[in-house]
Amino acid sequence: MRNILLTIAYDGTSFCGWQRQPGQRSIQGEIERVLSVLCKHSVQIHGTSRTDAGVHAWGQRAHFHTDAGIPAQRIPVAASNLLASNGNSLSTVGEINILMAEEMPMEFHARFDAKAKRYCYHLRSGGEPDLFRRNYCYQLRQPLDVASMRTAALFLTGTKDFRCFMASGGQEMHSTVRTIYEIKITEGLPENGDPESRNITLEITGNGFLYNMVRIITGTLVEVGLGKRQPEDLIAITESMDRSKAGHTAPPQGLYLAQVYFEAIQ
Amino acid sequence: MRNILLTIAYDGTSFCGWQRQPGQRSIQGEIERVLSVLCKHSVQIHGTSRTDAGVHAWGQRAHFHTDAGIPAQRIPVAASNLLASNGNSLSTVGEINILMAEEMPMEFHARFDAKAKRYCYHLRSGGEPDLFRRNYCYQLRQPLDVASMRTAALFLTGTKDFRCFMASGGQEMHSTVRTIYEIKITEGLPENGDPESRNITLEITGNGFLYNMVRIITGTLVEVGLGKRQPEDLIAITESMDRSKAGHTAPPQGLYLAQVYFEAIQ
Repeated sequence: MRNILLTIAYDGTSFCGWQRQPGQRSIQGEIERVLSVLCKHSVQIHGTSRTDAGVHAWGQRAHFHTDAGIPAQRIPVAASNLLASNGNSLSTVGEINILMAEEMPMEFHARFDAKAKRYCYHLRSGGEPDLFRRNYCYQLRQPLDVASMRTAALFLTGTKDFRCFMASGGQEMHSTVRTIYEIKITEGLPENGDPESRNITLEITGNGFLYNMVRIITGTLVEVGLGKRQPEDLIAITESMDRSKAGHTAPPQGLYLAQVYFEAIQ
Repeated sequence: MRNILLTIAYDGTSFCGWQRQPGQRSIQGEIERVLSVLCKHSVQIHGTSRTDAGVHAWGQRAHFHTDAGIPAQRIPVAASNLLASNGNSLSTVGEINILMAEEMPMEFHARFDAKAKRYCYHLRSGGEPDLFRRNYCYQLRQPLDVASMRTAALFLTGTKDFRCFMASGGQEMHSTVRTIYEIKITEGLPENGDPESRNITLEITGNGFLYNMVRIITGTLVEVGLGKRQPEDLIAITESMDRSKAGHTAPPQGLYLAQVYFEAIQ
C-alpha cells in the first residue's frame, strides 16, 4: 500500500465546497472520481481543510491510499486532464488542478499532521464593482483605511482564545485557543486600471483556524477600515469571547487557502 | 412612446450567448425579463452585437421601446439590482450590469446605426495556466513573439475583403468587405506575478466584423506569435479569400465587446 499526498488548486465558485455531499458537486467528490479511474479502485481522499462553498485554493493538500502502480509524478497531469475534460466550461483549463503528487510514509495524514496554514483574502475597495471579479474577491464601494486595518490586525496576532471569531456549525473543538503568527495586509492597483479602486489582500498565517475564523476576522477588519470600529476595539472584542461582538462574516468568494505547512513554522 | 439606449457589461461565461434561445439562459432574455418587470409590459431589446456563448462585454449597446414613465437615469440601478438578485452566485455583483440608459430619437437603432466597434481579446502566454482566469482569457503555455504579431497585424488594417476570416453560420451578408482602423497589441505582467507569463491584449477597431472575424484574426495572429506562420503570410491569406488558409478560431472566453461607436470615428 502507498500513501500519496496531493497539492491542489481550485476555483470553488461552482462547488458545494470541499466535502462530499449527496447529490451535489464537491471538490473532494470530483477528485475522488478521477483518482478512482486512474487507480482502478475506489479512492477516498483526506483533505487538510474542508473549505466552504465558493472558497478557493492554491495550496489545498490531501492524501489517499492506493495499491495501484501509477508513478506519483504522472498523477498531476493525468488527473488534471481528466478533471478539465469533464467540466461544462468552454475553457480547456479545469476548475480543479492537481499541482503535485508525492509519496509519503503510511502514517502521514494531511489533516492531522498540518502544523500551520496560510489563507489569503482578496478585497476590492472603492470605485465601481468589477463584474469579472465578482466570484474572486469581496467588493466594497467605499474606500478602506488600510493603516487602521493594519493596526487592528496587530491586536489579533499571538496565542489567544479566538472563540468570538468562530461561527456555529463547525466540528466539535477541544479548545478555541489558536496562534496567529502574522496578518499581512497589502494594497495595489486593480488590473482594470480604475484609479478610484484598490486591491487589498490579507494574508493570515496561523497554527489552526476555527470555523469561519478568517472570514469573521476579515469582516471585522473591514469594519475598522470603513471607520465603523476603532483598531483598539479588537482588544475588547477578543476578550468578550462573544461572536455577536465581532464583525460580519466576509463572503466566501474572497477567501483562498494559500499554503499548508507540515513543519512547525515558528 | 420612448426609445431608450442601454450600455451593458456582462460576463458571458454561463450564458448561451446574447441572443434569446428556447430553453436556454441568454443575456438578451435576462435583460428583457427585468425590463418587462420595470416597465410593466413585455419589452423586446435590440442589441448591437449578437455575442456568442462565453463572449463578454464592457460596452454592449441595446435599445428598446416603452411607454412606461420610469426616468431613464433610474433604469441602470433598478435593472442591475433585479439582475443581480436573480443569480445563483454567492456574490452580490450580478453577471450583467446595466451601466447607462439614455433617451434617443424614435428612429435610432442600436444595430443599424452602429458605425464602428472595438473588441478586446485577452491572451495569457507562457508559464502555468491560471485556473482563476480560465473563463476570461485564452491561455497558451508557450511564449508569444509580440513584435511579429504587431507586424502581421499591420497587413490586416485598411479596407479589405475579410472573407477568409469569416466562419460559416452567421447572417447573410451583402458584402464581406470591412475596414479595420487599428489593431493595437499590448503586453503586461499578470496579476499573479508569474515571471514566466505575460498578459497580451489585442484591441481591434473596425467599421464592422464578419461572423467570428475577431476570433479567427486572433487565432491567426497567435500562430504568427508562435512562429508557425510569418507576418507577411497574412498578405496571401487575405488574398486567398479562403477560410481554410487562415488560422484557428481563438476560443470565445478571451473576447470582449469593448465599445460601440454611433458616430464615424475615422
